[in-house]
Amino acid sequence: MATKVNPRILSGFMELLPEDQILFVGMLDKIRFKFEQYGFAPIDTPVMELSEILFAKGGGDTEKEIYRIGNRGDDISLRYDFTVPLARYVAQRYGQLTFPFRRYQIGKVYRAERPSRGRYREICQCDIDVVGSESAYLDAEMAVIIYDILSSLNLGTTFTIKVSNRKILTGFLEYLSLVNNSTEILRNLDKLEKIGEENVADNLSKLGVTSEQVEKIMQLITIKGGIEEVVTALEEVKVSSVQFRSGVDELTEITQLMRLYGVPNDCYEIDLSMVRGLDYYTGTIYETVLDEYRAIGTICAGGRYDNLSGYYTSNNLPGIGVSFGLTRLFFQLKEAGLITPKRKVLTDVLICTTSSDYLGRSVEIAKLLREKGFNTDVYPQQGKLTNPLKYANRLGIPIVLIIGENEYKNGQISVKSLSDGKQRAVPVEALGDLLMNLLAT
Amino acid sequence: MATKVNPRILSGFMELLPEDQILFVGMLDKIRFKFEQYGFAPIDTPVMELSEILFAKGGGDTEKEIYRIGNRGDDISLRYDFTVPLARYVAQRYGQLTFPFRRYQIGKVYRAERPSRGRYREICQCDIDVVGSESAYLDAEMAVIIYDILSSLNLGTTFTIKVSNRKILTGFLEYLSLVNNSTEILRNLDKLEKIGEENVADNLSKLGVTSEQVEKIMQLITIKGGIEEVVTALEEVKVSSVQFRSGVDELTEITQLMRLYGVPNDCYEIDLSMVRGLDYYTGTIYETVLDEYRAIGTICAGGRYDNLSGYYTSNNLPGIGVSFGLTRLFFQLKEAGLITPKRKVLTDVLICTTSSDYLGRSVEIAKLLREKGFNTDVYPQQGKLTNPLKYANRLGIPIVLIIGENEYKNGQISVKSLSDGKQRAVPVEALGDLLMNLLAT
Repeated sequence: MATKVNPRILSGFMELLPEDQILFVGMLDKIRFKFEQYGFAPIDTPVMELSEILFAKGGGDTEKEIYRIGNRGDDISLRYDFTVPLARYVAQRYGQLTFPFRRYQIGKVYRAERPSRGRYREICQCDIDVVGSESAYLDAEMAVIIYDILSSLNLGTTFTIKVSNRKILTGFLEYLSLVNNSTEILRNLDKLEKIGEENVADNLSKLGVTSEQVEKIMQLITIKGGIEEVVTALEEVKVSSVQFRSGVDELTEITQLMRLYGVPNDCYEIDLSMVRGLDYYTGTIYETVLDEYRAIGTICAGGRYDNLSGYYTSNNLPGIGVSFGLTRLFFQLKEAGLITPKRKVLTDVLICTTSSDYLGRSVEIAKLLREKGFNTDVYPQQGKLTNPLKYANRLGIPIVLIIGENEYKNGQISVKSLSDGKQRAVPVEALGDLLMNLLAT
Repeated sequence: MATKVNPRILSGFMELLPEDQILFVGMLDKIRFKFEQYGFAPIDTPVMELSEILFAKGGGDTEKEIYRIGNRGDDISLRYDFTVPLARYVAQRYGQLTFPFRRYQIGKVYRAERPSRGRYREICQCDIDVVGSESAYLDAEMAVIIYDILSSLNLGTTFTIKVSNRKILTGFLEYLSLVNNSTEILRNLDKLEKIGEENVADNLSKLGVTSEQVEKIMQLITIKGGIEEVVTALEEVKVSSVQFRSGVDELTEITQLMRLYGVPNDCYEIDLSMVRGLDYYTGTIYETVLDEYRAIGTICAGGRYDNLSGYYTSNNLPGIGVSFGLTRLFFQLKEAGLITPKRKVLTDVLICTTSSDYLGRSVEIAKLLREKGFNTDVYPQQGKLTNPLKYANRLGIPIVLIIGENEYKNGQISVKSLSDGKQRAVPVEALGDLLMNLLAT
């Protein structure tokens, strides 16, 4: 063959070696297990949606970041999150679903972002939502699930679930008679961490917010800490706004339930400066960060919405959801050396034979071991043992079974444990128990 | 909100209700479990590849069927199978991999086909390949895995693994001095089932194949049956071709190993008319069909190739692989009523309370039950029991736990089994064992 095409992938995509993929899948499995433990059922929407569906909301930065397929008749776009497809799914299948509808979806979403460290164009997301209920119990449960999942992943670093309620800030702006400007104000407040308090204050004053108002807003959003301190501080603000009041009450109720569920105080904080999902969330909001790696941003976020599917149906569907971004989290944990592959393969046992005459015996034993639950690989080439032993060593397969002439004649198998190099010959019947013991250590 | 966008998906995409998705995921899990049992490790390549990579082979029908993304600088295409990405992966990461490289990949591939019954544009595929070995043991193992997986899926219908070896037909054409025309001849033979023997014969004669040659070819490819009959029949053909001989020998060796592994005779057949993957496979080939639903075509196929990554590297990489098309298989099994959802959700237990005062107790019990391994849902609204009971009934949640005033005061829980409607109050400590018993029946 003549010229070769340089084998490479597009920038901004994460592709792992098998040992890392095993780690990654292990994390996905844990997340899925937890989702199911909390009563969520899976759905899987197509990666492609009609552009009309994805752009129903219209405008904004989202549209710029969407991959669109031009050459295929229909105007097709790739999903950039699971929320819009969920909104479409629930509207489309309303009559066939039972509400409150608890669903999870695990898969890939696509963002035509400029790739940079920790930012990917293909993102593995794990989402849960409960659609069709306004109960604040669910707001607490979401935070509990975040805590439960991140704990079960053994991240090797602490994390903080930042909790807030959109009603507090919105109610406060209402009280300051800034409600007409609120979207613009919130958009600016969202930049606080990025551009600093002074720049935000400047921008706000350009929007016609008085310096007194700016000061009040800054005072409010910099209230942080445990729920008691925050509530006490908020009471001192003395705001006459139903929205504000209801936001504070919800926050109180939710954090009480979180405590009952055993979420430790140092794993979450109230952060009133959080804005997130401007035209979307209406109540409780979450963002979770790794304490020592805040630079990579949010690894898990979500919140409550009043009406999920308003663009597709007149059925009113309030709900709440949370999304875990596993690609970014994995990148960060790996970068920081907090996770390292334990195994290059999932194989427990490799069987090898010195001659093809004994292959039949290999096959019998492989069949037996797989039935007993051992992941078993048969080395495809018969002959010298150096090759299969090198293969097992490189892949970290813990046990090699050898069938040579002696073993074959005596109806035995040599069992070689690669961790200590010890080898012993045993009859086939003793194999299962011996392997069980060797693999347990 | 004004006009609504009609909520719908693109045609040619499979989107399931949760109860069907649970079935689908169950099948995927079984396939993955088997892959791992045979020593395969996971990889996950991006859905998007550079068009240059995907089109390296160039030409043919494939290119027409590829989704291409026009609006994003790079010339990007969506993968239409896992084999080309594997070829690229192995070439790119050659030095970091251990050979023979056993990998599985489970995910979606995209084909811009005209959708029709059972044909989808987004296809869930489950692939295994072993790259870097020519051993015929692996050819047999692939057939064994097909048999093992399809058996474990409890399809409710029989299947046939059709096995052949490309060398037999190629060697035969060589022997007939038709080697210059062989690609065109094979392409025509591939249409046998579709257009019938007469039309194929017509086409062949147009290619300059004499009627005597046509007859000989037809005689050869209509040899079918168990390995002994086929080998006997092939011996009678008396062909002096090294290729032909080697094909027959491989077929003999492979079927012997399959037998040793316990694949029953009635689950496979030698079918020399099979052509498949014209410019790709070089040795053993497989196609598996559901006996009673042959019309939907192949549900699993694969074969041996001489050189996987020739377009990307000069490293010679022979190997063998098999691909399961789960989307089509699921469609057919569902259509035929061979699989039906057993559960609408994965939830074992629903907890509900008559007042928010008892929510704290719910939370404690939910936490306890999840730790004990029960998938537990807490009904988010407190109050009347009709709503949670209706919810549990509609979703088929087997057990509802009720905490009302009496239960709360007495430190008990009422356990209602929805299958027989029986309800009994028990202390919290007795809950785990009782649930275990109820769920076991």
